[in-house]
Amino acid sequence: MKKQTFKFTSASVDYYFNASIKQLKEIVDPTHAIIITDENINALHATKFKGFKTIVIPAGEKHKNQVTIDGIINQLIALQTDRKSTLIGIGGGVITDMTGYVASIYMRGIAFGFVPTTLLAMVDASIGGKNGIDVGIYKNMIGIIRQPKFLLYDVSLLKTLPQADWSNGFAEIIKHACIKDAPMFKLLKENTLAKFQKNKELLAKLVERNAKLKTKVVQQDEFEQGDRKLLNYGHTLGHALENQYELYHGQAVAIGMVYAGIISKQLLKFKQADAVVEVLAKYGLPTQMDFDKTKAIEVLKMDKKREKSTINYILLEKIGKGVIKQLPLTEIEQIIQSF
Amino acid sequence: MKKQTFKFTSASVDYYFNASIKQLKEIVDPTHAIIITDENINALHATKFKGFKTIVIPAGEKHKNQVTIDGIINQLIALQTDRKSTLIGIGGGVITDMTGYVASIYMRGIAFGFVPTTLLAMVDASIGGKNGIDVGIYKNMIGIIRQPKFLLYDVSLLKTLPQADWSNGFAEIIKHACIKDAPMFKLLKENTLAKFQKNKELLAKLVERNAKLKTKVVQQDEFEQGDRKLLNYGHTLGHALENQYELYHGQAVAIGMVYAGIISKQLLKFKQADAVVEVLAKYGLPTQMDFDKTKAIEVLKMDKKREKSTINYILLEKIGKGVIKQLPLTEIEQIIQSF
Repeated sequence: MKKQTFKFTSASVDYYFNASIKQLKEIVDPTHAIIITDENINALHATKFKGFKTIVIPAGEKHKNQVTIDGIINQLIALQTDRKSTLIGIGGGVITDMTGYVASIYMRGIAFGFVPTTLLAMVDASIGGKNGIDVGIYKNMIGIIRQPKFLLYDVSLLKTLPQADWSNGFAEIIKHACIKDAPMFKLLKENTLAKFQKNKELLAKLVERNAKLKTKVVQQDEFEQGDRKLLNYGHTLGHALENQYELYHGQAVAIGMVYAGIISKQLLKFKQADAVVEVLAKYGLPTQMDFDKTKAIEVLKMDKKREKSTINYILLEKIGKGVIKQLPLTEIEQIIQSF
Repeated sequence: MKKQTFKFTSASVDYYFNASIKQLKEIVDPTHAIIITDENINALHATKFKGFKTIVIPAGEKHKNQVTIDGIINQLIALQTDRKSTLIGIGGGVITDMTGYVASIYMRGIAFGFVPTTLLAMVDASIGGKNGIDVGIYKNMIGIIRQPKFLLYDVSLLKTLPQADWSNGFAEIIKHACIKDAPMFKLLKENTLAKFQKNKELLAKLVERNAKLKTKVVQQDEFEQGDRKLLNYGHTLGHALENQYELYHGQAVAIGMVYAGIISKQLLKFKQADAVVEVLAKYGLPTQMDFDKTKAIEVLKMDKKREKSTINYILLEKIGKGVIKQLPLTEIEQIIQSF
């Protein structure tokens, strides 16, 4: 277990790399901690939660809503959870998002930490303090920004991860490479999904590299005034598609990255749109899709990134260099309709 | 209109003293602002809201819950509220608490301001950035701390205030005097409720004095690690009684202050418990009540101020000097049972 502390504006976060979930007890006092997890994770790992009170919620993005939050709050009250308690979210992004959110609003904020169990949560969802829930088809419409106290990384938890979830995680890894890390893009091109799955050391290194990349971006811009917006690469259209078609997050983002690549080619003379498509395909991600463009545009109009009549759209100048462009909604509408 | 800016850790807040609600348009652009108010205020003042989009919710503490928040969120989405929008809470503490809360979680936080319309909200509820909702009988169980962008003070709005609401506000004014301002305690003793109601200038001065007193306490301790806890004087038992017996907040706090006076006498040799009772009575507040002690203690155990097996209880050494005492739950239980 290797502990590294990263400072954010409002708080410091302890990252425990190369750790085991069994070491959780060394970090938090079980008598004042409550684990929040989902049915799937609980079925696989319940024995590892011994000694902790545990709240188990139904699995899946469709439960990332107020109804589930209400249920968690009632259980927290029943367990006499107080301000000195720590909530520990063990699961994928849905669990870390909801745990962070409920901890941030319960008694006006109590401590929380995460043990991400999916590749996506390890490299992305659990980092940066964004939390929240969906409202109908609007993703993350409700939430706040608040940092966890700790993150525990145990890549052995990925052993049971379904194949689709691996691709899901790689979508964000490819995104990181596209906007910030050309050498990693090369690494991804030269390796394969199977190789990362087999080689635990290579995987742990990749996870740490991505966790640190995202952390650095967030540290420099915690409240998303500038550079952090780059992390939305592929997400603007991606989010619009995700709930509408019940896609995996990574699949939706992959499609979003492909389209952002085409827009980048059109507006910024970006030359490597095809290379992005190629790497996405290599890691099991979809690169084309038929969708209802008019409906997608309607959802885009409610995107949090909308500001009056424009959207901050993330484009690529080249691999490793993402840029933020404020585009009029009408222009985006035109380009999407013309695809 | 007199503008004064106060700095908090996370943000600056503009206070507009001696202002008129008609000046709201000078502070916020109506095309990107949404008023949140209740049925009563809307019936009295709707003409003043012209040019603003308005969300009207049912009046009363019993609606300060998630159901109402869900309704507001759906209306915000329908109104295409974006991150550049400002929510303006116009009403008493229930409205300012809910407006601040929903603005803090909508799209992970948008701007908000308040026009308090009750004495209680002017001197207390609208100040300090605490917001939230109740969960069943547990008051303010859910919420966060976040500062408004502005506060607009128009004491002429108090003209239509029912008598009980005047007393309600004076409960907090008396509280401020008890914990921090002995000269104001003297002022309250020498004057009467009727006199403050008749003399607009005297009232405006009293409101400003209390708004600034609370602001100063909060500034020095925004996240309630120390001195801000003094503002809970009378509130620990008060909150336990308030929802259980559907008391007015001020009535519940008045009873809480009476009991805190007795505990102070017992533990700290506080000599002026009778003077507190006398001033409370003078401003139309109750000073005794039969209540189910066992049930009140049960609710106390879920108080946010509880930390493991103790509660931070606010007591008085003398008038103008409140102190924080960490008391074991068992000791509080014993004292309350012995009353």
